[in-house]
Amino acid sequence: MQTEVVEIRGHIIDSLVLPRVLDEIIDAGAEYRILSFEVGRTHDDPSFARIEISAAPEALGGLLRRLGALGAATTEAHDARAEPADRDGVFPEGFYSTTSLPTRARVAGQWLEVENPEMDCGIVVAKGRARTAPMSDIRAGDLVVCGQRGVRVTPLEKPRHSPLFGFMTSEVSSEKPQGVLVERIADLMREVREARAKILWVLGPAVVHTGSIEPFCALVRGGWVNVVFAGNALAAHDAEAAMFGTSLGVSLSRGAPAERGHEHHLRAINAVRRAGSIAAAVEQGVLTRGILRHLVTHGVDLVLGGSVRDDGPMPGVVTDVIEAQRAMREHLPGVGLALMLSTMLHSIATGNLLPATVPIVCVDINPATLTKLLDRGSIQSLGMVTDVGLFVRQLAGALGAR
Amino acid sequence: MQTEVVEIRGHIIDSLVLPRVLDEIIDAGAEYRILSFEVGRTHDDPSFARIEISAAPEALGGLLRRLGALGAATTEAHDARAEPADRDGVFPEGFYSTTSLPTRARVAGQWLEVENPEMDCGIVVAKGRARTAPMSDIRAGDLVVCGQRGVRVTPLEKPRHSPLFGFMTSEVSSEKPQGVLVERIADLMREVREARAKILWVLGPAVVHTGSIEPFCALVRGGWVNVVFAGNALAAHDAEAAMFGTSLGVSLSRGAPAERGHEHHLRAINAVRRAGSIAAAVEQGVLTRGILRHLVTHGVDLVLGGSVRDDGPMPGVVTDVIEAQRAMREHLPGVGLALMLSTMLHSIATGNLLPATVPIVCVDINPATLTKLLDRGSIQSLGMVTDVGLFVRQLAGALGAR
Amino acid sequence: MQTEVVEIRGHIIDSLVLPRVLDEIIDAGAEYRILSFEVGRTHDDPSFARIEISAAPEALGGLLRRLGALGAATTEAHDARAEPADRDGVFPEGFYSTTSLPTRARVAGQWLEVENPEMDCGIVVAKGRARTAPMSDIRAGDLVVCGQRGVRVTPLEKPRHSPLFGFMTSEVSSEKPQGVLVERIADLMREVREARAKILWVLGPAVVHTGSIEPFCALVRGGWVNVVFAGNALAAHDAEAAMFGTSLGVSLSRGAPAERGHEHHLRAINAVRRAGSIAAAVEQGVLTRGILRHLVTHGVDLVLGGSVRDDGPMPGVVTDVIEAQRAMREHLPGVGLALMLSTMLHSIATGNLLPATVPIVCVDINPATLTKLLDRGSIQSLGMVTDVGLFVRQLAGALGAR
Amino acid sequence: MQTEVVEIRGHIIDSLVLPRVLDEIIDAGAEYRILSFEVGRTHDDPSFARIEISAAPEALGGLLRRLGALGAATTEAHDARAEPADRDGVFPEGFYSTTSLPTRARVAGQWLEVENPEMDCGIVVAKGRARTAPMSDIRAGDLVVCGQRGVRVTPLEKPRHSPLFGFMTSEVSSEKPQGVLVERIADLMREVREARAKILWVLGPAVVHTGSIEPFCALVRGGWVNVVFAGNALAAHDAEAAMFGTSLGVSLSRGAPAERGHEHHLRAINAVRRAGSIAAAVEQGVLTRGILRHLVTHGVDLVLGGSVRDDGPMPGVVTDVIEAQRAMREHLPGVGLALMLSTMLHSIATGNLLPATVPIVCVDINPATLTKLLDRGSIQSLGMVTDVGLFVRQLAGALGAR
Repeated sequence: MQTEVVEIRGHIIDSLVLPRVLDEIIDAGAEYRILSFEVGRTHDDPSFARIEISAAPEALGGLLRRLGALGAATTEAHDARAEPADRDGVFPEGFYSTTSLPTRARVAGQWLEVENPEMDCGIVVAKGRARTAPMSDIRAGDLVVCGQRGVRVTPLEKPRHSPLFGFMTSEVSSEKPQGVLVERIADLMREVREARAKILWVLGPAVVHTGSIEPFCALVRGGWVNVVFAGNALAAHDAEAAMFGTSLGVSLSRGAPAERGHEHHLRAINAVRRAGSIAAAVEQGVLTRGILRHLVTHGVDLVLGGSVRDDGPMPGVVTDVIEAQRAMREHLPGVGLALMLSTMLHSIATGNLLPATVPIVCVDINPATLTKLLDRGSIQSLGMVTDVGLFVRQLAGALGAR
Repeated sequence: MQTEVVEIRGHIIDSLVLPRVLDEIIDAGAEYRILSFEVGRTHDDPSFARIEISAAPEALGGLLRRLGALGAATTEAHDARAEPADRDGVFPEGFYSTTSLPTRARVAGQWLEVENPEMDCGIVVAKGRARTAPMSDIRAGDLVVCGQRGVRVTPLEKPRHSPLFGFMTSEVSSEKPQGVLVERIADLMREVREARAKILWVLGPAVVHTGSIEPFCALVRGGWVNVVFAGNALAAHDAEAAMFGTSLGVSLSRGAPAERGHEHHLRAINAVRRAGSIAAAVEQGVLTRGILRHLVTHGVDLVLGGSVRDDGPMPGVVTDVIEAQRAMREHLPGVGLALMLSTMLHSIATGNLLPATVPIVCVDINPATLTKLLDRGSIQSLGMVTDVGLFVRQLAGALGAR
Repeated sequence: MQTEVVEIRGHIIDSLVLPRVLDEIIDAGAEYRILSFEVGRTHDDPSFARIEISAAPEALGGLLRRLGALGAATTEAHDARAEPADRDGVFPEGFYSTTSLPTRARVAGQWLEVENPEMDCGIVVAKGRARTAPMSDIRAGDLVVCGQRGVRVTPLEKPRHSPLFGFMTSEVSSEKPQGVLVERIADLMREVREARAKILWVLGPAVVHTGSIEPFCALVRGGWVNVVFAGNALAAHDAEAAMFGTSLGVSLSRGAPAERGHEHHLRAINAVRRAGSIAAAVEQGVLTRGILRHLVTHGVDLVLGGSVRDDGPMPGVVTDVIEAQRAMREHLPGVGLALMLSTMLHSIATGNLLPATVPIVCVDINPATLTKLLDRGSIQSLGMVTDVGLFVRQLAGALGAR
Repeated sequence: MQTEVVEIRGHIIDSLVLPRVLDEIIDAGAEYRILSFEVGRTHDDPSFARIEISAAPEALGGLLRRLGALGAATTEAHDARAEPADRDGVFPEGFYSTTSLPTRARVAGQWLEVENPEMDCGIVVAKGRARTAPMSDIRAGDLVVCGQRGVRVTPLEKPRHSPLFGFMTSEVSSEKPQGVLVERIADLMREVREARAKILWVLGPAVVHTGSIEPFCALVRGGWVNVVFAGNALAAHDAEAAMFGTSLGVSLSRGAPAERGHEHHLRAINAVRRAGSIAAAVEQGVLTRGILRHLVTHGVDLVLGGSVRDDGPMPGVVTDVIEAQRAMREHLPGVGLALMLSTMLHSIATGNLLPATVPIVCVDINPATLTKLLDRGSIQSLGMVTDVGLFVRQLAGALGAR
């Protein structure tokens, strides 16, 4: 058995960090002795624990790494080890794989904040700075952090003071008073806007199919939409609705299939392609209403990511998916809230890129979708099982958007 | 091979009856020759076919029975064979098992309309009348129709002129413009009321959990609710909401769990039991608001059927399930529309009792529930995948109910 | 502000009890000071905390009650207050509402273990004993515990040593290696049998529809089935399968609808009713195979609870739901494991009656059903999203049952 | 009112074509007179109808187009009108939008069979041939069919003689005897192989997560897998399983999360990227087992299409989605059956490309996914709600694959 001492400080009892630390030790087949423990006398005082761990040598490394992810660090500090990538698009062996939590790396005795926290990346250090980099962006020679030493993450505390506190529990249920939840989300949006942060929307085509174009446009006019990520289908069906009044061939005013309706989306895509771009289609009067027109005329940033089931696609769709990820990444700095409506593909894609500090609200009528999205365990995400069409309408009402 | 000639008349092409008749014949391994066929020249003319069937003797009986269910009858007419039940609660061997379609039985040369069409019953004849009877209501000596001869059912034609036509397709999807569907349902309710038929609601507790008490009460005040079937949970949580402002312990105004909230429903049930009955609880001021109070003060008929998961139960809950079915049956004559909200148990129970001529609207957020409910293949049922809370609110709005 | 001191002892850190205690205090708007804290030096040592709470007088009562539910009790001990019920079927005002956790009540200075822990009951004390009683079983004059004082519950610790540990997390997902889970469940069943505890099965009709009669019968023959709770549908469709080879009219050997199949279940029910009882039907050769026959011939206890959607019902179905609950309660003592297959109604009913100490395995293909069942938050329940037909077959294989 | 005469011939009664023709006429607000009608006397004789239609001039065009899609054509024949595309990637105005049904176009008096039927494409004619072309593959100057005239589609008849007949009903239910269905699918696979057609598999990562690598590899060894379409996740998690024994970090042999497991897929991707390609990774011994290795060593064609949520991606993933579609199209000729397992994205993508004559079997545990996939209304698709892991194992057993 080998022993090591770790220390941990903060609201480690009520944020459940200490129990999880002890759990990890036991689960690793190791033992602990609590050398010293100072509990915060009142709620506002931090607590502190120094814990001696005895573990088999081969288990100790992994255990310390996991404890590090919880914020419990060995007392001695080392620099992170950085190794050059040997070829483009490949990390060196033993690369440190990031979480989306705030992270610091120790380089030349200095703790550097890692820029743009994102999960499943590497950490590249250069010129006194550290930043995340996805595998495909690595270039031979980049210095990439390897191993666990010299890297620390800051766990999120429970967001007690968030207006969604009590809801932000990854809990999904359709048997809740949804009207109240919508009010809370509206409050949170007001807070985010006051803090001058951006509100990001990830939209699935159900926003169009369910007849929510008008209330969503009202949100755009009200300034509640700063960035939109979506796929080809959202854009195609919005154009279809603008040109033909249908979505997937179903009349949005009558609810019944329209004459030749199943061809409408294709004819709409063709018309926008002929115009040359979405902005040109707006300018030339091809798109005289709808979400796309509103995004263009209100200067909202839009990233359309392609997928293998796309028809067309619409001009502006980034058909290379790695390029699409890069385009999405560029718009994330400054985002303070993400609302994800009825799209598993783009919601997971966005969730992969977002730092853990950005709260997420996911709305879908299918609880299985929410379970998949929220499984990633962010304590800052709220899943709402409801009809997305009725949700957008209620939210626009709650925000007084017209 | 044995041959038999059947005739069929009506809109047998566009109602798909003729193709299904031919299908049944082929599926039974039999052969047909069309002896004569007069097709309606225009849409309003009925068509007529006389078909000769050749089948193995052992298959012919079952085939003729199935063709009878489609309205194709042998040309020769026989009286139905009625046998006395040999003991209480048991049909005689070979009893005719009913569908919920309009049915006639030939007794003493007379075609009698079978009263109260209901599926999975027997037909009891007495005093020149024929009526359905469930197994448990049979008494020894009752004359019960046996075999297929002398019984004819009238298939439903496609409800071309219903305001829901085009929707009434057992189709369930969350990707439709729900607002439009709600308008159509409101139209249908207006039609039913003008025809002086009753509107039946089957309510699950989600109506309370989702915060829909107020809009539902508005529907009661507007006269849109004539009969309610529900279970103990709907009543208990409505009483809980009236007394504590919570549902399953969750505050309906704040959306968060209330102090001691999980005990509320039990305390509410206890209080109503102490009052002696729901009506007494309304009178004594125990229930000063909510659905139960509205039903009592507006004279709406209410049947509460018990289930094995019930707490309490609330006074008035019929704890014997066979008695509960009898209580429900008593309220069905005159019903012109059934709306079923978020309860699989009570919706299936009601669907079992309803004649096929009554249109059904089922609303649930879980498509699996609707699939089960609508599998029974009524062409008069509409499934809507949406949030029941938001649905009730929209419907009350569409009907101008306050 | 009023102050009170509570004490708590045990594995309060790694079982998350202490953090939850502190959470409750903060959530109630109260404050705490930790007067003394002794942390277990090693994993096997219990910890101990004495905490001073300052709260508004009107909030203190509820807070102490919630802390009591977590095992944190005031240092001074009071007897429980017992009041006589004033009428049949009604608790006195202010009755103590039970959880399903092990509970003690202090009567005449003595801590009595409350017999038959069951949630949503009252506690009746008589002749030096305390037991749970449901509302409907209360008789006027029964002494019922009121208020929180003098009642203590023992929270469950995390079942570290259970063979299901690591799975028993209320987690539901279809994307797990199900074969491994099945092996663990088999291990747990072996453990339970070695401990001479009973294995309870709660069965939905999907067990028959999915073609699992044979493997389930193999489990009965192997002695893995001690008690069965089910509804009318399971019994009716098993009888249908025994007599006609179909389930809901679908041939179990060909998978296609059978001739006149939709009447089969009704004819099967009628035949068993004519026999007089399920046992008589087995004896008279009406049921020559299937689950019912196996249960009868192997002496397995069977409770069939009625529901309002039932046809027939089968003889033996307890049609009064409150009586059905009583019948179920009688078989619970000695149960060491409950397996619930594809029935929301009977699973919730059983979950309501079971003590929290009995582990539960729920299997359903619909994750929404599991979410509802497991929401009750027992740390001893495992939800498995899988095909129940394939599950039963695999489990029988894993246990070597033929 | 304008009149037109159409003719239709075939099994138009039992294939429901005639009723649908009459329905379309009535739905368009038009009227019909049946000029002549010859009904097949026996099941094997075709029927024939000549129908005069009277409709408003503006409605007649669309109506004739819809009737054409059902196989009812005007008696006079015209050549299709072909117009040159005015720019790359854009169809001319009024382009004919294809279905996936067998289609003919009349060019210079000759009926040409349109090659590679695919929905939502245009028809390009050149050098006496006609073929489908997606919008993005159009080059300026290509001659594209416009309008409805001169194009005829052949509706599919009901696949009475398919081994899946009776199942192939787009019906999804978890309450069926799944074992029987699996046997039928195995029969169909044998038939397809005997006809020397290819079997295409579309795989989601759940195939790996649920522990189905081994039985799937057995199917590959048995020669039951000719083409595989999948995404990055399937490949990444198969590589993860090969290298670490985990899938998404969960041990496939123990079912519990593995040490550092959540990083495994990233390290596996990195290792395969370092090798340079999947084939190189197999050759260099990086992948010593699993699906990818089997596909490489057995020469099975593999198309990996990228998506915006991908990590890495694995080498060989086609990151441009339009290129991925092209790669998929290349492998479709000769496919006689498509099995789609637990992937909505790739299943929809494949369904978009497949001719309607290829039967499809979709397996997913989530009925909502199947509903979306099968909504497209192919009469040749079977949806099976079951656990994909248990399904693959049973199917391999039914085919005797080891």
